[in-house]
This record gives sequence, structure tokens and C-alpha cells, in this order.
Amino acid sequence: MNKHLVLQSDFGLVDGAVAAMYGVALEVSPSLKVYDLTHEIPPYDIFAASYRLIQTLQYWPQGTVFVSVVDPGVGSNRKSVVAKTSSGHYVVTPDNGTLTHVKRLIGIEEVREIEEAVHRRKNTEHSYTFHGRDVYAYTGAKLAADLISFEDVGQLLSVERVVEVDLSVAQLFEDRIVGCVDILDVRFGSCWTNISRELFTKLNVEFGEMVEVSITNGHIRVYQNHVCYGPTFAQVNVGEVLLYTNSMYHMAMAINQGNFARAYNIGTGPQWKVELKKVLR
Amino acid sequence: MNKHLVLQSDFGLVDGAVAAMYGVALEVSPSLKVYDLTHEIPPYDIFAASYRLIQTLQYWPQGTVFVSVVDPGVGSNRKSVVAKTSSGHYVVTPDNGTLTHVKRLIGIEEVREIEEAVHRRKNTEHSYTFHGRDVYAYTGAKLAADLISFEDVGQLLSVERVVEVDLSVAQLFEDRIVGCVDILDVRFGSCWTNISRELFTKLNVEFGEMVEVSITNGHIRVYQNHVCYGPTFAQVNVGEVLLYTNSMYHMAMAINQGNFARAYNIGTGPQWKVELKKVLR
Amino acid sequence: MNKHLVLQSDFGLVDGAVAAMYGVALEVSPSLKVYDLTHEIPPYDIFAASYRLIQTLQYWPQGTVFVSVVDPGVGSNRKSVVAKTSSGHYVVTPDNGTLTHVKRLIGIEEVREIEEAVHRRKNTEHSYTFHGRDVYAYTGAKLAADLISFEDVGQLLSVERVVEVDLSVAQLFEDRIVGCVDILDVRFGSCWTNISRELFTKLNVEFGEMVEVSITNGHIRVYQNHVCYGPTFAQVNVGEVLLYTNSMYHMAMAINQGNFARAYNIGTGPQWKVELKKVLR
Repeated sequence: MNKHLVLQSDFGLVDGAVAAMYGVALEVSPSLKVYDLTHEIPPYDIFAASYRLIQTLQYWPQGTVFVSVVDPGVGSNRKSVVAKTSSGHYVVTPDNGTLTHVKRLIGIEEVREIEEAVHRRKNTEHSYTFHGRDVYAYTGAKLAADLISFEDVGQLLSVERVVEVDLSVAQLFEDRIVGCVDILDVRFGSCWTNISRELFTKLNVEFGEMVEVSITNGHIRVYQNHVCYGPTFAQVNVGEVLLYTNSMYHMAMAINQGNFARAYNIGTGPQWKVELKKVLR
Repeated sequence: MNKHLVLQSDFGLVDGAVAAMYGVALEVSPSLKVYDLTHEIPPYDIFAASYRLIQTLQYWPQGTVFVSVVDPGVGSNRKSVVAKTSSGHYVVTPDNGTLTHVKRLIGIEEVREIEEAVHRRKNTEHSYTFHGRDVYAYTGAKLAADLISFEDVGQLLSVERVVEVDLSVAQLFEDRIVGCVDILDVRFGSCWTNISRELFTKLNVEFGEMVEVSITNGHIRVYQNHVCYGPTFAQVNVGEVLLYTNSMYHMAMAINQGNFARAYNIGTGPQWKVELKKVLR
Repeated sequence: MNKHLVLQSDFGLVDGAVAAMYGVALEVSPSLKVYDLTHEIPPYDIFAASYRLIQTLQYWPQGTVFVSVVDPGVGSNRKSVVAKTSSGHYVVTPDNGTLTHVKRLIGIEEVREIEEAVHRRKNTEHSYTFHGRDVYAYTGAKLAADLISFEDVGQLLSVERVVEVDLSVAQLFEDRIVGCVDILDVRFGSCWTNISRELFTKLNVEFGEMVEVSITNGHIRVYQNHVCYGPTFAQVNVGEVLLYTNSMYHMAMAINQGNFARAYNIGTGPQWKVELKKVLR
């Protein structure tokens, strides 16, 4: 391992929960370097946790250990696991769907169940609600600090059975693609779809050409317009809508220096359908 | 010391205040490892600062130096101090009540007044409003980096006279306990009371049994219901209320995957009384 | 360089953008120490980015490399540069006005254009919208880790031509000074003006004396009152307004333990004029 420990959660930064996890990790080994992915995952939002992992994991050095704690089922029979990804990273997490994108898009080589009897902080036997501190940060720290090996974590589980949340898959229909809004680039209001750049190339649209973009929320059409496809925001005027390839190579809509999601009240999830169709001249 | 410096404040992260404190600390010694407890203490809320310290301090390695700057009285005659706790940690702070929980629940071994003439950054003589940067981060960094010893900080003060905010104490009355809501687990809306698990055991309630929980705000009753006492959220259905022992071994109320405080508009402080009574069958 | 890399952006901390930049930097060199200035610059607000740099830069050790990414013109022909300041710090940024305050108040010794063909992460050729990750964090990390020298960044540009945003300059008129509200101390609602302490001394006001403060937003007067000039908040009662010298040695208005900006709906920018006039007795 490389001593890097990266924490993600839905705890926010307004109280002491994250700092308690840091303390536990550094108590395990003061040589660790602890970082944050984000702690602003919307409460209980496993899909977002899964997505933020895929958005960042591969930019980190191999051997980095990620701890992701979005754990609505704490205390249920959901398993606690460590996954070794095909990219050489480790993810410590409840097995509740948080590994979905990593499993599908990067690949999981092996997954082990955390043996709690061994890998739980001592004297926490009356605390049942903060596994982030007592199990996940603690185990992640021991792994990152090479105090235990991946094999020491616990027994192998079936990679195939790693829990997944439903992922909507974008589809090509002759002259158009139908997908959905996966997530927002929150601060800028850009809508990131599940339509990959690779699939979009099938429509043979060149930079500067127009695409008909329509967005529906269930039965309600919330947006429909001809939008310029460009490499970057500077392709269009300030205040104009742009279709572009985002930093994860998926198609996205934005308003140059504005906020697309707020302008049209757009949300995320499979019910937020996006249709892209080349405009013929 | 162990080179760990942990900062807490009510400055937020939206401007440069915290980064200035980091810079000052690293200018003192680039070998320091600087961390955040939280900087989202509500402005001027000394009680919250005191509480977040007790929530986290003991999870950090001995010899860690905490700097806590919630300082509504900056420029008044409130003292600047460093406390050495019975747990082997150090807290650099204005003596304005921030040390209350640490003093009562962990214990303070010694407390020294920061001699400002010695431990204030040079060339800050016209700046009277940012002691966080000019006195506390600076002194904390020197202490954490072993450039000064605890004795060098300044003269000993009386531990007994360390300023305390009023803490409401929960009380047992035959078949019920009366306490108050101390603070929220902000993101999840759980209400953390001042009723310890130890006191609660006097009611002889088993996991799965019901407790009558009533909450009043002054003269107004804001919640009253029979609530299941369980080890963890998974004990009840999604959307159901639970009484549980929180990560600090105090009694708390939550809605499984919901937000209890928001659902019932519950606030914090001694006027938010909580009564727990065993339901007899 | 001293291995310190300090990141600033308008990305916020709610998604994975900042964590991706951290990963890129640590992949360049795991020996780097990466810190945040702030990531809560209001979206596209170049003035705020410039201001937060001047608020913090000089508190950091010499040789610290700052990366500031507020980049509404990503993909336009705005240049990507590294500036070496007269204070011995480095700033990696789009040349869009972010360097304004540093150039005017600290001084820029040399500025070089980042040669993107050399200093861009490999395999990012279809991503045009995240130069923060692919160009700025990457180049800043190489510079901070001494893998490249300042000279290796690219060719010298003219310091004179470094892009500046308009800065309003405060003026003395006999018995009064007219300036504007530059920015807020966001959490406390204090209004920081562009009137320097040095200029204010020309009015010969002593601590404890009254100043007539009037604030206008365009043609509308939003505040006018006699305000006490004091060294620090404790000079006035809780809830009272104070005129004071802030931590950057500029004049500011606050309510002791309240929120001045929220109380009077005060914003920032050159149209928010502030007039200070000594009250004669």
C-alpha cells in the first residue's frame, strides 16, 4: 500500500464525525496520509457514493485505500467488505451497492468480508451506529498502513454477488440516443448523462453542429431545444446552452456561466430521460 | 508532541481564514500535519465548540494539539489558554467555555495562560480581530512542533476557574428520566440528548421494548409517542422513529433514513426537554 | 520548492472534482503535501478568487505553489500561466484576472505560459472542460515536487500584460473617504471595504470616536449611521455596529455577534459605495 487513505461519506463536515474517523486512522498509524473524497454525498444516497468513486478513483496512485461510508443499513445483515479493483485500488465499504460503478466500469478482482470480531475497535461494543469510525476507518487504516494484508481482512466472497444498484443503460435507436441524467455537476448545474461519448459518436455529430436535446421527467417534458455540440463552454455565448463531453467522457448539458439544472428544474435518476437526436440541415 | 495539529473554528470554509491559519502553522514548521475538526461551528456557539471537542478528542493520538477558535469575545479581557487534558491532549483556545465538556468529562490536568507578548506573530500589532491566526494557530503550531514546551506557554492558571458554560444535567425520577436535547447529528437530523446510556439502564428497558418519548420546547409539547428502543436503525422500518444509544453513549432519537429534527422542528438547548418513560405492558 | 501545493477553485466539495485534482497531484509525486485554500469561490467569480489569494498567500512559506482554478473561459484563448510573486510564491492559474490583487499588492516577478503540449496529462485529449485536473493541478504538482523548474513551464510573458479585473480605488475628499465593499467575511457578515487603514488614518479618528458610515447601492441609500471606531468587537455592546480594521488592514463594518451584511442586505462590488466621515463634536 502507499499509505494514502481517502475517506468518503454522507456525514457532512459540520460536526465531529469525520474528524473522529481521522483520529482513529492516525491512532492506527501516524504515518498515514488521510484525504477526503467528499463527505457531502446526499444522506443515504448509495448511487451518488458509487458514482463519486468512479469519478475519482483512477486518478489516485495504485495502492490507495478508499473508505466509503454511506450506510443506511448499518446494523442490518448487509456485509462489510474490502474490494480490490482491477486498477489496483482498494475500497472499504458496506456491500450495499456502493461498488456498482467500480464493478461494472473498472472491475473488481477480489472482494473479502471484513471479519468484525477481529477488525473492530476495542471498547465500542455498545455503539452500533457508527461503523464508519469503528469498523471502516479502522480497517482501512490498518490496510493502508500495511499492518494487515488484504488477505487478513477476512474470507473471500463472490465478486459476482457484490450488491449492485440498478444502472440505466443508454440505447441507440437509429437516429437518436435515449439515456438519463445520472448526476449533476452540482455547483455549475451541468447535467451529466449516462450516454457515453463512444455511443454518441454513432450519431456522427461534428463540433459546431446542432443536436435536438429533449428531457422528460416521467410523462412531463421539461426541456426541448436545438443545442450546439461543442468541445467546451467557450463554443457558445455566455448564457447559451451547450452539449459537451464531460471529464468522464459522458455527454452533458450546461449553460455557459449559468446553471442548466436550476434553469429548467432538472433532477437525476432513471426517470429523468434524455433524448439526443442529430438535427439534419 | 506528535506533530498533529487539529483546527476547529466557526470561520467556515468559504473564505481564506482557515487557509491563513494553515499557512501560519506550516510557516512555523513545515513538518506539522494539520487537520480540521470542523470549521462549521455555528457562529459564536461556544457550547457546540465544546461539544465537538469531546466528540472527537479522545480518538486522536496522545500529544495531539487542538486549536479551537470560537471567540465572540476577541479583544475583551477573556484569557487565551492552553489546557493539558487528563487524556494527554492539548487544547489551545480562548477561555470562554470552550473547555466545559473536556473539563467535566475528561478532566484538565493543567492550564496555562498564553503570554501574548511572547507568543504572538510579529507585525500583527494593528490586527485585533483574528487571534485565530495571530495567537492560537501560531502558539498551537509552536507547541505541536516542539519549538516550545507546555511550560513555555505562560503561567499556570487555576483549573477550577476555567470558564464553563451551563450544562443541563439529566435526572432520574422513579420511572422516567428528564433531560434535554444537547445537539443534533446535523446531516441526519438525529437528536442527541444529555441522557447517558448508563442513566437510561436504570429504566430497565430491553432492545425491542417501547419507550414513551416526549419532547417540549418551553411550554409547548412538540413530540409525544411510543418509540422502539433498538441497537441500530435497522431495528425499525424505514421512516419509523427509533430510540438508540449514539456513538458517544448518550440516548438519541432518529427516523430510520429520515430526519427526526426536521420532521418535528426540534432544536437544541436546555429549553428542549426530553422525557423518557418505560411503557409497561 | 517546499512540496506544499495549495488548491483553490469554485468547484465546491460536494462532488469528486477536488479529489480528482488531489489524486492527480499525488500521482505526480506522493511526497507532496496538498492543502485547500477554499473551493467555495462563488461560481465564475474571478474577483473573489483574486481576493482570497491575497488574503492568504503571504502567510504560507516561500516556495509554496498555489493552483487557482476559477475558469469561466475554459477552452477559449485565455492563457494558462504560472506567476512567480515578489514574495517568493507561485500561482498556477488561467490568466483571466485571478492574478489582479497579487500583481498590484504583492508584485509579480515573472510570468510564464504553460506549454500545454508538454504539461498536460496524457490521455485527456477528449476532455476539454476540466483543465483544473488535466493542466493546472498536474503542472502545479510537477513544479511543487521539483520535477520541473519554473523555467520549464514555458516561455516568459509580459508581466505588464497579465490580465486584471477592474479594482475600484478608494479616495479621500477633504473630510471623508469614499470607497466600496470589496467582499464579505461571509460567515460573520462583516463588510470589508477597499479603504485601507493607512488612508483612514488621514481622517484622524481615534479609537472610541464616532464615524458617519453611509452605504449606497447605486442610487439607493441602504445604511447611514454614526458608528463607533474601535480596535475589536468587544469595544461595542453585543448587537451594536462597529467600524474596525480587519485582518488585512482594511476598514470593515460588523455587528458584534450579529451579521451586518444580512441585517442591511449589503452586497459587494463597485456599486456598493461606502462613505466614511469623521463626526465632529
